[in-house]
Amino acid sequence: MSSHHSLLTDHCRAKSVKNTHQHSLEFLFHPSSVALVGITTTNPWHWTRTFLDALIESEFDRPLYLVNPKGGEIKGHKVHTSLKDVPGNIDHVIGLVNAHTAARLVEECAEKGVRAVHFCTAGFSETGEDERIRLESQLVEVARRTGIRIIGPNCMGIYCPQSRLSFTPSFPKERGPVGFISQSGGNSIYLVRQAALRGVRFSKVISYGNACDIDETDLLEYLTNDADTRVICLYIEGVKDGRRFRRALEEATKEKTVILLKGGTTEGGARAVAGHTAALAGSRSTWDALCKQLGIISVCNLDEMVDVLVTLLFLPLPRGRNAVLFGAGGGASVLIADEFENRGLRVPALPKEIIAQIQEFTPAAGNILRNPVDYSQNMMDAESTSKTFDILARWEGTDFVVTFIRTGQFVLPWLSESRMNMLVGRFGVKQGHFPKPVAMVLEPSILPQEAEAILAAIRECISSGLPVYYSFAAAANAINLVLSHAKKRSETA
Amino acid sequence: MSSHHSLLTDHCRAKSVKNTHQHSLEFLFHPSSVALVGITTTNPWHWTRTFLDALIESEFDRPLYLVNPKGGEIKGHKVHTSLKDVPGNIDHVIGLVNAHTAARLVEECAEKGVRAVHFCTAGFSETGEDERIRLESQLVEVARRTGIRIIGPNCMGIYCPQSRLSFTPSFPKERGPVGFISQSGGNSIYLVRQAALRGVRFSKVISYGNACDIDETDLLEYLTNDADTRVICLYIEGVKDGRRFRRALEEATKEKTVILLKGGTTEGGARAVAGHTAALAGSRSTWDALCKQLGIISVCNLDEMVDVLVTLLFLPLPRGRNAVLFGAGGGASVLIADEFENRGLRVPALPKEIIAQIQEFTPAAGNILRNPVDYSQNMMDAESTSKTFDILARWEGTDFVVTFIRTGQFVLPWLSESRMNMLVGRFGVKQGHFPKPVAMVLEPSILPQEAEAILAAIRECISSGLPVYYSFAAAANAINLVLSHAKKRSETA
Repeated sequence: MSSHHSLLTDHCRAKSVKNTHQHSLEFLFHPSSVALVGITTTNPWHWTRTFLDALIESEFDRPLYLVNPKGGEIKGHKVHTSLKDVPGNIDHVIGLVNAHTAARLVEECAEKGVRAVHFCTAGFSETGEDERIRLESQLVEVARRTGIRIIGPNCMGIYCPQSRLSFTPSFPKERGPVGFISQSGGNSIYLVRQAALRGVRFSKVISYGNACDIDETDLLEYLTNDADTRVICLYIEGVKDGRRFRRALEEATKEKTVILLKGGTTEGGARAVAGHTAALAGSRSTWDALCKQLGIISVCNLDEMVDVLVTLLFLPLPRGRNAVLFGAGGGASVLIADEFENRGLRVPALPKEIIAQIQEFTPAAGNILRNPVDYSQNMMDAESTSKTFDILARWEGTDFVVTFIRTGQFVLPWLSESRMNMLVGRFGVKQGHFPKPVAMVLEPSILPQEAEAILAAIRECISSGLPVYYSFAAAANAINLVLSHAKKRSETA
Repeated sequence: MSSHHSLLTDHCRAKSVKNTHQHSLEFLFHPSSVALVGITTTNPWHWTRTFLDALIESEFDRPLYLVNPKGGEIKGHKVHTSLKDVPGNIDHVIGLVNAHTAARLVEECAEKGVRAVHFCTAGFSETGEDERIRLESQLVEVARRTGIRIIGPNCMGIYCPQSRLSFTPSFPKERGPVGFISQSGGNSIYLVRQAALRGVRFSKVISYGNACDIDETDLLEYLTNDADTRVICLYIEGVKDGRRFRRALEEATKEKTVILLKGGTTEGGARAVAGHTAALAGSRSTWDALCKQLGIISVCNLDEMVDVLVTLLFLPLPRGRNAVLFGAGGGASVLIADEFENRGLRVPALPKEIIAQIQEFTPAAGNILRNPVDYSQNMMDAESTSKTFDILARWEGTDFVVTFIRTGQFVLPWLSESRMNMLVGRFGVKQGHFPKPVAMVLEPSILPQEAEAILAAIRECISSGLPVYYSFAAAANAINLVLSHAKKRSETA
């Protein structure tokens, strides 16, 4: 495959000089202008309009052109009837035309000096239909001939807060250390949205779909070389070139922390992969072995990926597995202790002298001074709660402290904003205030009348630099994954 | 232990005549009057006030008395200065006094003809302190001598919608088929609240705490004999008499479906159990073996218990494990297929003739006509969506259909109320409308601006009799547990 060969050469070059020169794909993330070709002029709810809405909301500040043969105007932007009618230079095209005219659009792009086209358009090889597989081959052929790089087809493209590129309204404008390469557009939106709510920010997110030209390995090599990216998340359905991808993963894991979600590890999932991005999924055992060998954090779903991200970013690495769990509720204490110990974390008994220290100012009834500490009756008392928390965090048997606020067992008016503020005020102090890392389990509520106060409390904790988890199980699972990963890294270092 | 011996005798009697007479504990659930003794008159936020708030909200319609030496009035209810000053008869006392005066209160209750006292009060054997263990023994001694039955101490008591008994505001007023015996008060509140949001209603819920008199076995025998209870949920930390409990479980599983969450299966969890209800937790393998042998559905946490409940109550038992998954999103399709097949459910390929039928009216681009069916582009079109859904449900290869709406990958204004209504209108038809059982995965949102529309959609589905799950994993897990349970029951029947 000469296209892959040329890519390989490109990348070898990029790598050998990575400290002095930009990676060959760097230009993708900093277009000097963008054109949305095929955006609908009539229906504001049409999916093609999402890209315009996203770029307006993200305050994309370089020339932005709209193209549709019908002409007209959308939200104050003139709609040009063809690409060649656009007065300025066009660097990057977002192709929203249908599959049959995609190759022709690339030809037009060549005339206009466009360097990259991202095709959101679906209806190519993923349909499994011969004719549509041919359409994708044509696209590759034109791209190779013209030297234009293709992202997709069948994907959402690029989100890069630094250059204000975005593909969905509501994505954060701030930059962060996480890169995400996702074969699925929906999964990339889900991950960014959910992670953003938990305080995570991104360097670059690329939804790359069918990968007819730029593929997962190219993007992985790019992020490995990207100084803005510290953690690389991958959602992979299948890879074009297994050996090349493996080599890229090896390099990536040397420089960054890598989290992988492999889609299509079952028979049904693999069939779905074929229908989704026409990729070959590969066996589960192969992927498990790969992750184990290279020290990649393997996750089972996107929520777990978010949990691992907040742990990596916001929980200073605990020196060991001993957790002190602090919250309200006897039954909750039992369940959280089980969740933690079931995942290989330890919930050690408090020594008598620590209990005695707390007992000096804490009544016995309704509080349980063990580990977990059930501080039900005193939780609203600022002084004794802070004092207890401090004693627990200073105890030498503690490696980290987890506070749990299980809102699901409270009801309004107990979940009022003032009460949530008070509760969070006790623990939502800046990460680093206590001598041990602190994490927070705070259940959100799906009831609108409670959601606001709880979400405010969650945000308060996040702005204090705490990792926030939505359930006992999620916290235990993610902290275990990160500790196991760190141990493996230190052993092989 | 003579106290246990006398209980045993009681129950043997009750059981031998269960079809003609009421169970000996029936009276607990239908008190002719209730007194709250020790309710605080000053602080409306005090925990003792929860019980009054709950009984007012549940419209408890028999005499309700408040007692506190300080006298006065709360919310229009006179506060009597002592139990003997209450003019009427008192049947049931909710004891909110401190542990040191608990035994004395039982003596006073005897003089007043009270039949049962529920002590919410904590600070007894669960503290591990000798003096407080002695306080609990005294309580048992007085109870045995006076013939008064004790619930607790250290628990929330009884919720019985039929007689309008309740221990937490916001519990549903309607009755249902689920009984719940919970050693933890917090866990009982959590379970009822979360299950109620998903459409589950209860016959009787008993939070029984330290179980100094009435214990888990008494309550299990009661629910086994209770005609209003079809499903029995158990949250157990430890049992007083293992053999007796096992016999009761055997009887229970003959008559009802039993779901068990065992708290304290780890070392840390068992220590928490000791501190919470002073129970001995027992090894995990023992409990696993017991569940397997008796055909009990064993769950790992309370959310899983809710998922199993909605499956048992709202998903007509599928005749097999073949799922058709129908929703929006290619990446979502891959992930949900993996979740289902990883739990032993099957996501079979659609035969060509079924695909051809759907293709007649569905465009290829953006939709994936496999299984899962990704109907992204057509989901908002009522006619083709309904037609496709019908074809899938009628296909002989389908045992049940699961619709998935992953709101987390959409954003406002896509998640507006009108759009959610439209979406749900396609599938939220009454259970039984389609020839196969239908389930719904519908993610709630924690964002207040989205929560309302999504919650309305969830409620619409619930009122159509659909089981609603909050995640792919939750649906797959619960449906697998229920199918496995049904298979085991049919094999041993």
